[in-house]
Amino acid sequence: MLTNRHIVILGGDARQIEVIDKLIGLDARLSLVGFDQLDRNFNGAVKAKMEEVDAGTVDSVILPVSGTDKDGNVETTFSNESIKLTQGWLDQTPEHCTIYSGISTAYLDKVSHETNREVVKLFERDDVAIYNSIPTVEGAIMMVIQNTDITIHHAHVIVLGLGRTGVSLARAFHALGAYVKVGDRRPEHIARAVEMGVDAFYLKNLADEVHDNEICINTIPALVLTSRVLSRMPSGSFIIDLASLPGGTDFRYAKKRGIKAIITPGLPGLVAPKSAGRIIANVMVELLQEKFKEENQDDA
Amino acid sequence: MLTNRHIVILGGDARQIEVIDKLIGLDARLSLVGFDQLDRNFNGAVKAKMEEVDAGTVDSVILPVSGTDKDGNVETTFSNESIKLTQGWLDQTPEHCTIYSGISTAYLDKVSHETNREVVKLFERDDVAIYNSIPTVEGAIMMVIQNTDITIHHAHVIVLGLGRTGVSLARAFHALGAYVKVGDRRPEHIARAVEMGVDAFYLKNLADEVHDNEICINTIPALVLTSRVLSRMPSGSFIIDLASLPGGTDFRYAKKRGIKAIITPGLPGLVAPKSAGRIIANVMVELLQEKFKEENQDDA
Repeated sequence: MLTNRHIVILGGDARQIEVIDKLIGLDARLSLVGFDQLDRNFNGAVKAKMEEVDAGTVDSVILPVSGTDKDGNVETTFSNESIKLTQGWLDQTPEHCTIYSGISTAYLDKVSHETNREVVKLFERDDVAIYNSIPTVEGAIMMVIQNTDITIHHAHVIVLGLGRTGVSLARAFHALGAYVKVGDRRPEHIARAVEMGVDAFYLKNLADEVHDNEICINTIPALVLTSRVLSRMPSGSFIIDLASLPGGTDFRYAKKRGIKAIITPGLPGLVAPKSAGRIIANVMVELLQEKFKEENQDDA
Repeated sequence: MLTNRHIVILGGDARQIEVIDKLIGLDARLSLVGFDQLDRNFNGAVKAKMEEVDAGTVDSVILPVSGTDKDGNVETTFSNESIKLTQGWLDQTPEHCTIYSGISTAYLDKVSHETNREVVKLFERDDVAIYNSIPTVEGAIMMVIQNTDITIHHAHVIVLGLGRTGVSLARAFHALGAYVKVGDRRPEHIARAVEMGVDAFYLKNLADEVHDNEICINTIPALVLTSRVLSRMPSGSFIIDLASLPGGTDFRYAKKRGIKAIITPGLPGLVAPKSAGRIIANVMVELLQEKFKEENQDDA
């Protein structure tokens, strides 16, 4: 339980509602900043403005997946007011106050360093990345179906990178009957692909592997789909780039060559906000409970 | 080969292009009626108007999936002219002239009976229904992802009917990590569901099985999702009805209860016209070759 723990939810989208519900269930004391336009009230949570929250009592601050922008502003779907996490406000929080964010940002790094407050980046955790790969894969499936005139079944699909998302992609497209081929640099990933029953090749041979490609899904955050590779890919191919911005595709060349290539960050929140929210909520609750258990032990 | 066989393609959508390509490859003599606005010419096929086609030389007529309307008019995507298959025109064709249609219609039944011409209904064939289930399932997956805020993975999914499409649905949703439960009347279908690793129940118990449903996919062309059943289904549920019109859902009651229910005929042509066209083309070619082989044998 999180009884008497004061947690501030600072902005965010529909995914935070799952977090709020879960934390209320654990008896936390919640202040919701940036939810004034949300047409729902929560028993045990108070909607507040930033200046109404007594920073000195705050045990944890939960930011949206995107963290803050370069000036400390926080995205919020449910409010028109601008919300800012300032260094001055953080300075007033107790020393043990921890900040939870999806990703790190330069601003967050700076203010947390200056105020000596811990920042936990949820999306850098392997477990979150693996759970998040589930809605990401379903989003990719949806986009492939929407953007091609062929079935995934019996399509020639290349998955680049057999990391946390790549494994899920290869498994799902294979299960839907596609001819899946995985490209990776690491011999242990090649081995895993073969174990999964899909074909595999070393990334250095990519240009030789794309001649019959119909659908290519990239997860590697480096320029792998170069003009040299794309020049050998059929012009009717479809590319989804799931790597972090700017992706791994030479989009300019792809367009020139008549290859439809799209980059789609944030699929989980888009296609399955509830499930994506639950993923964050579950991990968040585990982290908070662990954190407060440690503190109680330190106090004892 | 189909050398010197005169085949008339009468209207249709993008799927017929796959049929045309395949028949040209087999050296058939093609007349394309209702393709004047298609921005592509085919070597070995002639675009023509109905009155320009010499009915006396026609070996086969290929109609669109939808056949004709009640007055004999044929749907066409690539022309603004109205195309009609008349009894008078059919009367002029040779006796062996066969009509191929996706489905039967009252008009087709009537004129084929009066003129004593055979009508082959492709979509009543088991093989076509099974092949077509592949793009149908992908369409269903797309609609589920678009219409729910949860992932298919770990969702509670009920598939009603383990027929030609039901098997494909159960397999695909199970493969994507859903908790799949199949409802059917027949003990051998229950057995097959269990063999596939999904749960199963007898349809007579449907009302007792829907309390935790999140996604329900119906393939049974009879009213199975009655108000009594729907009253016990969670109001946030999503229903896709894939059964032939009017479907198997009490849509009026579903709406009243806040359950989103949609009926979506024709998913294959919608989500994967190329693959759907290839399915028709492959079966069509087999049927035509078989037909003409028989005729040659009769002649000999």
